Amino acid sequence: MGLWDMEKIPFVGTEEKAEGLGFRYYDPERVVAGKKMKDWLRFGVAWWHTFDQELVDPFGTGTAQRPWYGKYSNPMDEALAKVDYAFEFFTKLGAEYFCFHDRDIAPEGDTLRETNANLDKVVDKIEENMKSTGVKLLWNTSSLFTNPRFVDGASTSPFADVFAYSAGQLKHSLEIAKRLGAENYVFWGGREGYESLWTTQMKREQEHMAKFFHMCHEYANEIGLDAQFLIEPKAKEPTMHQYDFDAATAIAFLRTYDLMDVFKLNLEGNHANLAGHTYQHEIRTAREAGVLGSLDANQGDKLIGWDLDEFPTDLYETTSVMWEVLDEGQIGPHGGLNFDAKPRRSSFEPEDLFRSHIAGMDSYAAGLLIADKMHQDKYIENLQAARYSSYDSGIGATVEDGSATLASLEAYALDKPQSEIIASTKSDHIESVKATINNYMLDALK
Amino acid sequence: MGLWDMEKIPFVGTEEKAEGLGFRYYDPERVVAGKKMKDWLRFGVAWWHTFDQELVDPFGTGTAQRPWYGKYSNPMDEALAKVDYAFEFFTKLGAEYFCFHDRDIAPEGDTLRETNANLDKVVDKIEENMKSTGVKLLWNTSSLFTNPRFVDGASTSPFADVFAYSAGQLKHSLEIAKRLGAENYVFWGGREGYESLWTTQMKREQEHMAKFFHMCHEYANEIGLDAQFLIEPKAKEPTMHQYDFDAATAIAFLRTYDLMDVFKLNLEGNHANLAGHTYQHEIRTAREAGVLGSLDANQGDKLIGWDLDEFPTDLYETTSVMWEVLDEGQIGPHGGLNFDAKPRRSSFEPEDLFRSHIAGMDSYAAGLLIADKMHQDKYIENLQAARYSSYDSGIGATVEDGSATLASLEAYALDKPQSEIIASTKSDHIESVKATINNYMLDALK
Amino acid sequence: MGLWDMEKIPFVGTEEKAEGLGFRYYDPERVVAGKKMKDWLRFGVAWWHTFDQELVDPFGTGTAQRPWYGKYSNPMDEALAKVDYAFEFFTKLGAEYFCFHDRDIAPEGDTLRETNANLDKVVDKIEENMKSTGVKLLWNTSSLFTNPRFVDGASTSPFADVFAYSAGQLKHSLEIAKRLGAENYVFWGGREGYESLWTTQMKREQEHMAKFFHMCHEYANEIGLDAQFLIEPKAKEPTMHQYDFDAATAIAFLRTYDLMDVFKLNLEGNHANLAGHTYQHEIRTAREAGVLGSLDANQGDKLIGWDLDEFPTDLYETTSVMWEVLDEGQIGPHGGLNFDAKPRRSSFEPEDLFRSHIAGMDSYAAGLLIADKMHQDKYIENLQAARYSSYDSGIGATVEDGSATLASLEAYALDKPQSEIIASTKSDHIESVKATINNYMLDALK
Amino acid sequence: MGLWDMEKIPFVGTEEKAEGLGFRYYDPERVVAGKKMKDWLRFGVAWWHTFDQELVDPFGTGTAQRPWYGKYSNPMDEALAKVDYAFEFFTKLGAEYFCFHDRDIAPEGDTLRETNANLDKVVDKIEENMKSTGVKLLWNTSSLFTNPRFVDGASTSPFADVFAYSAGQLKHSLEIAKRLGAENYVFWGGREGYESLWTTQMKREQEHMAKFFHMCHEYANEIGLDAQFLIEPKAKEPTMHQYDFDAATAIAFLRTYDLMDVFKLNLEGNHANLAGHTYQHEIRTAREAGVLGSLDANQGDKLIGWDLDEFPTDLYETTSVMWEVLDEGQIGPHGGLNFDAKPRRSSFEPEDLFRSHIAGMDSYAAGLLIADKMHQDKYIENLQAARYSSYDSGIGATVEDGSATLASLEAYALDKPQSEIIASTKSDHIESVKATINNYMLDALK
Repeated sequence: MGLWDMEKIPFVGTEEKAEGLGFRYYDPERVVAGKKMKDWLRFGVAWWHTFDQELVDPFGTGTAQRPWYGKYSNPMDEALAKVDYAFEFFTKLGAEYFCFHDRDIAPEGDTLRETNANLDKVVDKIEENMKSTGVKLLWNTSSLFTNPRFVDGASTSPFADVFAYSAGQLKHSLEIAKRLGAENYVFWGGREGYESLWTTQMKREQEHMAKFFHMCHEYANEIGLDAQFLIEPKAKEPTMHQYDFDAATAIAFLRTYDLMDVFKLNLEGNHANLAGHTYQHEIRTAREAGVLGSLDANQGDKLIGWDLDEFPTDLYETTSVMWEVLDEGQIGPHGGLNFDAKPRRSSFEPEDLFRSHIAGMDSYAAGLLIADKMHQDKYIENLQAARYSSYDSGIGATVEDGSATLASLEAYALDKPQSEIIASTKSDHIESVKATINNYMLDALK
Repeated sequence: MGLWDMEKIPFVGTEEKAEGLGFRYYDPERVVAGKKMKDWLRFGVAWWHTFDQELVDPFGTGTAQRPWYGKYSNPMDEALAKVDYAFEFFTKLGAEYFCFHDRDIAPEGDTLRETNANLDKVVDKIEENMKSTGVKLLWNTSSLFTNPRFVDGASTSPFADVFAYSAGQLKHSLEIAKRLGAENYVFWGGREGYESLWTTQMKREQEHMAKFFHMCHEYANEIGLDAQFLIEPKAKEPTMHQYDFDAATAIAFLRTYDLMDVFKLNLEGNHANLAGHTYQHEIRTAREAGVLGSLDANQGDKLIGWDLDEFPTDLYETTSVMWEVLDEGQIGPHGGLNFDAKPRRSSFEPEDLFRSHIAGMDSYAAGLLIADKMHQDKYIENLQAARYSSYDSGIGATVEDGSATLASLEAYALDKPQSEIIASTKSDHIESVKATINNYMLDALK
Repeated sequence: MGLWDMEKIPFVGTEEKAEGLGFRYYDPERVVAGKKMKDWLRFGVAWWHTFDQELVDPFGTGTAQRPWYGKYSNPMDEALAKVDYAFEFFTKLGAEYFCFHDRDIAPEGDTLRETNANLDKVVDKIEENMKSTGVKLLWNTSSLFTNPRFVDGASTSPFADVFAYSAGQLKHSLEIAKRLGAENYVFWGGREGYESLWTTQMKREQEHMAKFFHMCHEYANEIGLDAQFLIEPKAKEPTMHQYDFDAATAIAFLRTYDLMDVFKLNLEGNHANLAGHTYQHEIRTAREAGVLGSLDANQGDKLIGWDLDEFPTDLYETTSVMWEVLDEGQIGPHGGLNFDAKPRRSSFEPEDLFRSHIAGMDSYAAGLLIADKMHQDKYIENLQAARYSSYDSGIGATVEDGSATLASLEAYALDKPQSEIIASTKSDHIESVKATINNYMLDALK
Repeated sequence: MGLWDMEKIPFVGTEEKAEGLGFRYYDPERVVAGKKMKDWLRFGVAWWHTFDQELVDPFGTGTAQRPWYGKYSNPMDEALAKVDYAFEFFTKLGAEYFCFHDRDIAPEGDTLRETNANLDKVVDKIEENMKSTGVKLLWNTSSLFTNPRFVDGASTSPFADVFAYSAGQLKHSLEIAKRLGAENYVFWGGREGYESLWTTQMKREQEHMAKFFHMCHEYANEIGLDAQFLIEPKAKEPTMHQYDFDAATAIAFLRTYDLMDVFKLNLEGNHANLAGHTYQHEIRTAREAGVLGSLDANQGDKLIGWDLDEFPTDLYETTSVMWEVLDEGQIGPHGGLNFDAKPRRSSFEPEDLFRSHIAGMDSYAAGLLIADKMHQDKYIENLQAARYSSYDSGIGATVEDGSATLASLEAYALDKPQSEIIASTKSDHIESVKATINNYMLDALK
């Protein structure tokens, strides 16, 4: 293969890794904590950012330079050609998974039937390439947000024809998931929210969304699709307020509408920040509710109020993410790390697609190594065990075993002097903990 | 009574209202939408801000000037004296409710037993004053956050002795609620959160919190306390992250731990902003889940990242809050508007306590009048009914009645041309809606 | 004329104003504070939002429906046709000014020479229409941000060819300003900032920007262009950090590079918020430095971290803006209120362009009336005069007249008891001030 | 000496460093880039956080446990005793500098004269300790914000008596600076801002502030004090808006009031974030204006909207700060790294004062080593030189040497095809740059 000019990126696909640019930490076959690195990380390439994103922003047209630009006058020809570029990219990069929205891969026609026909042609070619390369589909999804028909939502649109269209579109997307053996199926409700509460029947919209999800689940059962369904929370953007604001809000929704057994969550670092949380917080929240499904690998900038989808390079964040993953034993039952990330408008050359993925993959590999060293030492586990040990016996145990009452605890505490209660609290030495994590970071990567 | 120098605030407690300062919209006995204004609004004065707050901030000591300062060398004497100031304040202001934390009204002793004894003396005096004035207790609560023992939480403290102490403290606070006929009982978990996830077993802490709530519920049943239990969400401050982040997070918690029948929510405008929401959003969320309990009347500043607890004067916000309340038919089954608000450090004179409450009460009264005019015209109701009408019949009705499937909806949409789907969507004319609400604001208050 | 279907917006261009939709406060000829309303407000329509904006967002294609869509296959034909739509719009709406970027009105060619030729044809037609309708050019500007060549800035681009191109483009834009009698000329440095400091020579870039501004000033002198030059501050978006962060930063730049006599500022409400300020703060800052030039009339949402460019409807904000303008005596020497605002993606119909401008114009007219009533009463002036009166005589006067020294002031203060100093400070009664402003709002618009 | 129980912190003051806790990177005598580490870093201990801070927050009383608590009933006795604790702390920690506000070290009396007398007694003892230990004063300052008299500012107070008092207080503080050989003198204007613009004459206040600064400068000259004067910018908190918002705003102020020769800036990481900036941005801004004076070493959390004053442990931030310092050749002419930082409320034990300083010192030492390695390789210098090379000759050189005009540049660009201009722009490969900085981080600390 030779669609991509690899002269500029000689370190990819060769045995020898260039200093300072190739993979330094990511070694797919290296065994860490009982599994190969590639099986912990399960990296996926996002079709939309890598093959469709022109690097526009609200104040500028695209800066991207891509090898297929200007070669095809017919959109279907370009769509088909991009399949070749994509699979060569996956293979040269060494990513075993990819993800896509239906609208990423083929142009729309004038009716859903025509659109589906376009889509099927490209899916045929993708299926062939999956077979020949062994690259797998981490998840697919349906774009229920780009077309103007979704101006006020898809399943939460105030307009029933849009709901109907969305359902039809989704049906075919599930059929493709089945056909391509998708391991997960994602729902991102980017338009499921509101511009203003004055014009919105929020509860009615959420009930429609729940009905939609139940219909999808029923249809998946009908066709024997066993991909894990995933909701992807995001607080805002494009709407002023999205219904899947964050992990906790999604959990409240799933519990309210009897969907906890059907869905898990696909979380993202940048989305976490938009909701006021760290990525680690969102993952921990999902883990503890038993709904961690999969992860989007990107990063935001906490001083910036919109979705940056930067490639992840912050080792503090990749370490905390991978620590949670190691503690969980896996990302999720079928989860992976999908690079929902794009180069900056200023890194617009074709080679930047390789460079940025390498930076992201290596940063997560480094995070895995650091977290693994912490886990090996049980550094956090021991620290926490000591900190909560007063619940392992005595009065604390009566709290945990359910035998305590307000009265029994009052009796225990009523005459204790204040100094004794204060003496039972211990410093968390949090500054030393942070310094120790710095040390782990450096020791693990020597 | 004459503890407060009313010469500076002659408009309070007289028939004649001073121009530009007295109540302009609040007329307690005026009937609006079938109820007296005072019964819609049920204003409460917050003991902690009004009688305890010295107007400190992280960089300065208190600026407040209060008539009892410097008069009492013994803390209990001052605590008892303040009861007189408080009830004279309630009466002169015309507020029918008040709220307090246990630690607001009496000093702590060296043991819980001594602390309870101090507390009981002041409660005795409060009880007498309630009888003689008719002022009622909207809610009481327990300060499980001020004392250093709560450094890492109360029911979520890693230290079992602190859990036990909290339980004992809470027990007596529930007994006081019973004795004083509290209409609600509030739990604000200001320390129930974390400084760092590295040192925190989040799930274990939340399980402890749930057990604590169940114990409290059981004890309330035991003593026949029928006050509505309320959780008060706040995203952060004092902790880096609080477990009751916002209404949706609290709902997820209540559903997870089987507490939906036991708790409703006490919401606050400033807390809504700290979580990235409008106040209206939080109220709507709670309403639609059936857990709207009571409201804190204050406001924040969306450019400021900490809790301001300003007295509410923004008529856009009071209008949206009162529209939700009118639509609900009440604030909550026993709810009211508690002024969890303090004068600024720069408005430090005694009369500012009257001035600021009057500004807040009048702003909510104005909000009620504006919302009422909108409701009378069914302005929002009609606008929404038209907007969602496609679900009232035809394909939309099959969605709502549960007969639709992905297949039936696909069949409906499959051959519709794109232009037809687009034509089914309608502009919300949101700019005209906002202009119309401006007009309602001005017309209602003429 | 009849390009716009006025049946849906019958209230525009007729004597009779529809209830609840037409102008309620804006009466162009009404005299307020010695000038006609239209002369205080000098409303301008923004070509880019009104005639070019398709209502895209980062997750969706355009929802806008416009009467000229689909009628023209040739971009120049469409560009020329839109001139007719534009001037009919200005006239029917009753706006006396408009604003545009060079790239808004005509398509680019393959070279700057071709681009200029396209531009000139459209400018010819605009010039004719200006003469026939009397509509004037509040300001024009040059888009040095949309084209991919500006990926890293125009005058701050690291690539000298881009600087040269920008200079050439700007030259012709100044010539157009001269030809059309622009009252101001705006520079918005949307790409003049950085993605990362690691790759940026910030000082060198700012020196280039200063040189660029001096060249522009010299060329304006050369061609006899007397339009007021304006910088438009914005904190971020599209870049991570923009050099004209806010008014104070722009002032530091102008002072550093000897440009204070050449430039004033064009401020915007939404931009103020992105920098962490209120709009009033930015205007006050510019006024006090003598550089208030012109205003963009829009609003943001302080819970949202990106540029919304909403039409302004918040009367608190329009009141504070117009209070500053009345206090200044004018917006700026040649300033006006340009609607740098777009309808929402959900208000996509052609009539929404009229509706949204009407909502914005009326909200500013209301703000003018409210501020005027406050000015008439000298409410704020008197309040401030009393508050600062200790500087009018005595020790305070020695501070202002320059005769005080640390030693003279120490001598004054050294033996004053603390209580006396405290007694010299007075409450600002800020809650009553806010309540009084509410009252002004309602009284002025009765 | 043995005031501090060093058994818990055996790694301090010994030759042998404990694994995982003692200094790992900070080696005071180690030569880096031509200077000893201690001379690059010049660490200072902040008296207020280390010896006065009780670890209160707005919702809780202090959790700090300190060895002198409960030992002294007389405030002056405690103040004097704390001098011993302080100098033993400095010495054992190995910090060569300290900083203090006048109000940190001695209690106020009823008049300024009494207050000064208290102060002088403690200064006597400090002076002795400085001589005996060799510890030096990085800077001192005056608390013009804690006492209620400063409710509305000190030099910007609307009340002239407060201005006079502030001037008197400052006079004595400058005399102490002279006496103790302070290397800098800091002005932090925490109350110099506003609660509301409606009640504020902003310009008049800023003129007063400028007069105050000129008086201080004149008095310093008079007494022969040659400490560098420093302004410390902060955006907000405690006020809603502070006049020294950020570096650029401070520069605008200094230029406006002819103070650029008198002042430099004392910058802080947490303050940078509150203004929407990175710490590196603020330092670069000050450097390029020639006003970098000194640095406060702390960190914030960009998801938190208030001042955390955390000890710095983020190596990305310490690296970027130290890169700027190395590039500058020094922090400032007399600058150092003052730990304006406090342990968390949860790390309340005495040993946490040592632990947290060690974490912070070591993180800055690590940042120095990483930045030094980058500087040795000229990694950033070379990258930037290549990126801006088009200005070194040809058309770019005409821009820099001042010979270019709009006309000459137009002539250059007018007929260049678009593709040629685009081809002149180059990718910044920013993702690879970030990955390379990660590699530097790890390589430097091996």
